[in-house]
Amino acid sequence: MRIVFLGSGNVATHLSFALKKTGNDIIQVYSKTLENAELLASKVDADPIDDIKLINTNADLYIFSVKDDILPEIVEHMPETTGIWAHTAGSMPMYLFSAKRREGYGVVYPLQTFSKSREADFSNIPFFIEGDNPKTEHILVETAKSISGSVRLLDSEKRRYLHLAAVFANNFSNHMFTLASEILDQEGVSAEVLKPLISETVAKVMVMEPKKAQTGPAVRYDEKVIQKHLDLIQDNDTKKIYELISKSINKHSK
Amino acid sequence: MRIVFLGSGNVATHLSFALKKTGNDIIQVYSKTLENAELLASKVDADPIDDIKLINTNADLYIFSVKDDILPEIVEHMPETTGIWAHTAGSMPMYLFSAKRREGYGVVYPLQTFSKSREADFSNIPFFIEGDNPKTEHILVETAKSISGSVRLLDSEKRRYLHLAAVFANNFSNHMFTLASEILDQEGVSAEVLKPLISETVAKVMVMEPKKAQTGPAVRYDEKVIQKHLDLIQDNDTKKIYELISKSINKHSK
Repeated sequence: MRIVFLGSGNVATHLSFALKKTGNDIIQVYSKTLENAELLASKVDADPIDDIKLINTNADLYIFSVKDDILPEIVEHMPETTGIWAHTAGSMPMYLFSAKRREGYGVVYPLQTFSKSREADFSNIPFFIEGDNPKTEHILVETAKSISGSVRLLDSEKRRYLHLAAVFANNFSNHMFTLASEILDQEGVSAEVLKPLISETVAKVMVMEPKKAQTGPAVRYDEKVIQKHLDLIQDNDTKKIYELISKSINKHSK
Repeated sequence: MRIVFLGSGNVATHLSFALKKTGNDIIQVYSKTLENAELLASKVDADPIDDIKLINTNADLYIFSVKDDILPEIVEHMPETTGIWAHTAGSMPMYLFSAKRREGYGVVYPLQTFSKSREADFSNIPFFIEGDNPKTEHILVETAKSISGSVRLLDSEKRRYLHLAAVFANNFSNHMFTLASEILDQEGVSAEVLKPLISETVAKVMVMEPKKAQTGPAVRYDEKVIQKHLDLIQDNDTKKIYELISKSINKHSK
């Protein structure tokens, strides 16, 4: 397939690498900042563009991997093309494309956190696909299957919940690691000592439900320990977070 | 060394296995419930007892691995012995032993979450040691070193913060996985799809600071996405948790 990427961020970068590796042609990379377009384009042998009017209208697939808030605007300025349009955003509905075209659009949502500095192993990244009709859906599913062994259909409504769950599973758990590190930093203890504990936390949820893996003072709401901990926390927001999560753990343990 | 264990829970179980494996003799296991004492004692070739008066007073080391709230009471009823007394609790001070004996006591705190159903690899579990004098400290450090490559001294005051940090790093991050799973359960999507995301979340913090690994809508406080997410959450406590953590992430990103 001949593919155009709109966007040059983490998702566009890793997804274009993966698609190129499995034999697709990345023909153009668009970014409103030419430098960013050039950086990615040079790595996937594509042409960089910063003017949406220069989009090649004969590609098979246009992948929109831009920030949620500029996605509608970019779609608005797209020229008419023959190929399919698909975005990669968890929280944006598929039908935003309907403002601009009658058919041939969908969503390819990879459930993963991408960093520029880390290689992504797409083979086990779950992809969630949506298409405006069975033909579009089929093409998007086959494209995703060329890079991942975990591809399924999901509509926009359910995808929003998936994105919400991902925020808890990734962003919020990561912030718990940040707060833990901060507590140790303040005491002059290296946060490195937490690594085996963090590894085991995750190793456990790979083989059992997180609810069943839960331990610690909040499970039985051990007020003495909880109060001792609250007394140690100086930051008021962190104190509130400790209290609320402890109550929630206890509620979920019943 | 000849070791007596007081307690038969997760920590006592895993720690006694590890100490036995490196050539120590576990001579007795005490539990107020004889059945529990028997279960562990049979696995480490020790004698089970449920009466603290039957404690063998000639052991080299007595390890108290019981719940925080019953620890002082058990110490209170201990007969005089020659060997060292040490507890394994993160939030309990070393000096609680001073109510009962003049010297020869300390703390051996392994920073890890233990489950009965999972084998523990002690070689990389960090141990934090405290002793009432250099001689006690030396013996406890050498004992810990016989099972772990990561042993250091830490006083009771700092150990409390370590325990607090562990609650964030393990209990609270695990609860974020629980809430994420719950959101998907309610939508009929298998929580299994979160596993690659959770794995990558932790793989990232093994090589970079969690603060620097942070991504998602809260980093730049993307109000549109955050409001959309809040609208999806039905449980009020979970909503508050979402709001507070998002604000905290944003504050830490500045």
